[in-house]
Amino acid sequence: MSNTPADFVICARWVVPVVPSGRVLPNHSIVVRQGRIEAILPTDALSESQLSLPRTDLPRHLVTAGFVNTHGHAAMTLLRGYADDLELMDWLTNHIWPVEGQWVDDSYVYDGTSLAIAEMLSGGTTCAADSYFFPNAVARAMCDQSFRGQICMPVIQFPNRWAESEHQHVEKALQFHDSVRDEPGITTAFAPHAPYTVSDEGFEAVVSHANEFGIPVHLHLNETASEVATALKDTGQSPLARIQALGLLTTHLQAVHMTALSEAELQLIAAHNVHIAHCPESNMKLASGICPVQALLDHGVNVALGTDGAASNNDLDMLGEARSAALLSKVSTLDATSISAADALSMATINGARLLGLEDNIGSLEPGKSADITAVDFGDINFAPLYNPLSQLIYVASGQNISHTWIAGECLYQDGDYTRLDIDDLSRRVSGWQEKIQGDV
Amino acid sequence: MSNTPADFVICARWVVPVVPSGRVLPNHSIVVRQGRIEAILPTDALSESQLSLPRTDLPRHLVTAGFVNTHGHAAMTLLRGYADDLELMDWLTNHIWPVEGQWVDDSYVYDGTSLAIAEMLSGGTTCAADSYFFPNAVARAMCDQSFRGQICMPVIQFPNRWAESEHQHVEKALQFHDSVRDEPGITTAFAPHAPYTVSDEGFEAVVSHANEFGIPVHLHLNETASEVATALKDTGQSPLARIQALGLLTTHLQAVHMTALSEAELQLIAAHNVHIAHCPESNMKLASGICPVQALLDHGVNVALGTDGAASNNDLDMLGEARSAALLSKVSTLDATSISAADALSMATINGARLLGLEDNIGSLEPGKSADITAVDFGDINFAPLYNPLSQLIYVASGQNISHTWIAGECLYQDGDYTRLDIDDLSRRVSGWQEKIQGDV
Repeated sequence: MSNTPADFVICARWVVPVVPSGRVLPNHSIVVRQGRIEAILPTDALSESQLSLPRTDLPRHLVTAGFVNTHGHAAMTLLRGYADDLELMDWLTNHIWPVEGQWVDDSYVYDGTSLAIAEMLSGGTTCAADSYFFPNAVARAMCDQSFRGQICMPVIQFPNRWAESEHQHVEKALQFHDSVRDEPGITTAFAPHAPYTVSDEGFEAVVSHANEFGIPVHLHLNETASEVATALKDTGQSPLARIQALGLLTTHLQAVHMTALSEAELQLIAAHNVHIAHCPESNMKLASGICPVQALLDHGVNVALGTDGAASNNDLDMLGEARSAALLSKVSTLDATSISAADALSMATINGARLLGLEDNIGSLEPGKSADITAVDFGDINFAPLYNPLSQLIYVASGQNISHTWIAGECLYQDGDYTRLDIDDLSRRVSGWQEKIQGDV
Repeated sequence: MSNTPADFVICARWVVPVVPSGRVLPNHSIVVRQGRIEAILPTDALSESQLSLPRTDLPRHLVTAGFVNTHGHAAMTLLRGYADDLELMDWLTNHIWPVEGQWVDDSYVYDGTSLAIAEMLSGGTTCAADSYFFPNAVARAMCDQSFRGQICMPVIQFPNRWAESEHQHVEKALQFHDSVRDEPGITTAFAPHAPYTVSDEGFEAVVSHANEFGIPVHLHLNETASEVATALKDTGQSPLARIQALGLLTTHLQAVHMTALSEAELQLIAAHNVHIAHCPESNMKLASGICPVQALLDHGVNVALGTDGAASNNDLDMLGEARSAALLSKVSTLDATSISAADALSMATINGARLLGLEDNIGSLEPGKSADITAVDFGDINFAPLYNPLSQLIYVASGQNISHTWIAGECLYQDGDYTRLDIDDLSRRVSGWQEKIQGDV
């Protein structure tokens, strides 16, 4: 987001501003100046000066806010399909962690994150929260591609190739935080991995520094019922009770997964305005459980969406995730009215912006907000007939129908081509990693 | 399937023959002669005469058996997105049935079925079981596009634009059955709609004629728990007990949905070798419930996949359906090893062929079988890295990655273009229906 891009107008068949929910504006245009949305108005009401701007005509397209992916591990895209159809702990301890232990370094994380950004841009995602080792490499990859992100600084007890102790994680996180404070597209969060991998001292250090910097805490929490049961059995305390006692249960907490929740815990979450990053496809694929999204929404909790890593999904497609969230909520509540198409879109956009504390800047198409925009091409016969553009967006479209993605007014992806990313070079680097890792299989 | 297509060879990066399950053949070729698979062999072992055949080189592609969609209502594609996020009975009685009552006729069914075939071909589906009114129009659409199908002849108590009484449905079905008996790509089945919409007399007529012709019975069964509870309350008999008493519980029964099953019912289904058409996305979207697929498989039951109609899905993408089947089974059993990628592919292909009684001809790539084949292009960066082609096929690919679809050796779809279908003309006809129907909204 270095240079301010040129001003322009997008003239679309439909504009879906996200806020207010459910609104579809036919034949509307978005005027973008200095990387921000100046106005949204009927195309036939464009002024002469607006008409003189360069224009992008999208006559078959729905244009909406760029998607906000609130939980992922971008570098793990290098392990897409490396191990599937395995139980969570088997998958982690016997497959994922060993290969990570051998290969993860700065260049692995840079290349893997770049690959994830390529996929996210091609799928309309303009902002992602990312949790991985070597956050400097994550930041470099995001900045190089003008991608917007919350970079989560990991804290975990286990030694790894980035840091040897929990304490060293915190120290390196502080250095990292300092190094990116002037990057306009980057925010940070502390990411203590999970209650079962972080000590009380680790959490206390996180709370102290997070409060000092005014940054959020991003935490895998209640991912499975067995994780909760084990904690209760071993310590007599639930993970939620423990993190509450440690001072983490605030509106600055981004709680990821949350498939196992009692009614009392639901009320606790709601009372403290905790934000939820719901990852339906990862939760399904790893058989983690089902987050009670409708109950959380009924309690007034903000629920956003995340793809989780491509190693457990196996894509980073936020439209697919929104569809899965709607379908899973309907079948798990046995209520087909749960999570409408408009609700699912909100979860993929404005709710994500709220979780990240960025709702004043992104998450919807409103004058004054950053021009983080995506366009979906409805021209294929598979979109016909078309009664309800929102239904088509959530229930028919996938990331593969995205035609354009802009971040802060810069077009980064258009009809299969990237404006910044050297996709051939990236491809070669990814093949190189595959060969190295596959050598180990 | 009128003229025998020319002989040719497909040289693929990977051939996945489906049988045996899980096998991936790198750098293999498929020799097709007179519409049938003659041989599958390493590309570097092709003989001189095989090398002299016209060849289709697919250097980035996975080639596998065409998908078999075992439950759908193709003409309902004209109602894609017409009504969403509604409870099943509200959706049917207040939205779908009224518009069907007004518009469904021969040309509606022909155009809607043609639209569905266009989508299915573009998504790698080569055979579909279809249940709708005006089966003659369904047959015409399928024959015109050389599509393979089991056309289900509806029997229902409610009067509709095709038939006025249950008895008239049966009479018209008999006429229809007679009219298509010489069509090579077409088979038939009786489709009594559901236990709650068909009388004992209707079922008895169906059983009698199905036995006479040696054709299957295709039936919506136990779609929801409330349907079962209502039957028990109103009649003292479960739907399954009733259809058993009426003589339908045989291996010629194709039971669709089956979300509500007791352990005793599971055993009954298994004992009678009933086939199941599982429609995970429709069941999720309509909040019908979750078919216990893993338990059925554990009991040795054949479980195949169906998309159901596009009005409740909202696409006809069998790869997406296979992924949803795997993910839903994992999360509902809390077992991530349930339904592997290879299992999901079998459900989308050979299990479907078995359900339709066509396993000697289609459902896998084996010498002697019909050349019903599809190719998936893995060239996109979103498929990288690629450790496991089967994982990429089920967990990453969707219908939008299909590059080629052949039926009986005829290439019907290639890289966005149809060889038989006039897509512009179809588009115009679909727009015409949309305008008429939308006028009523």
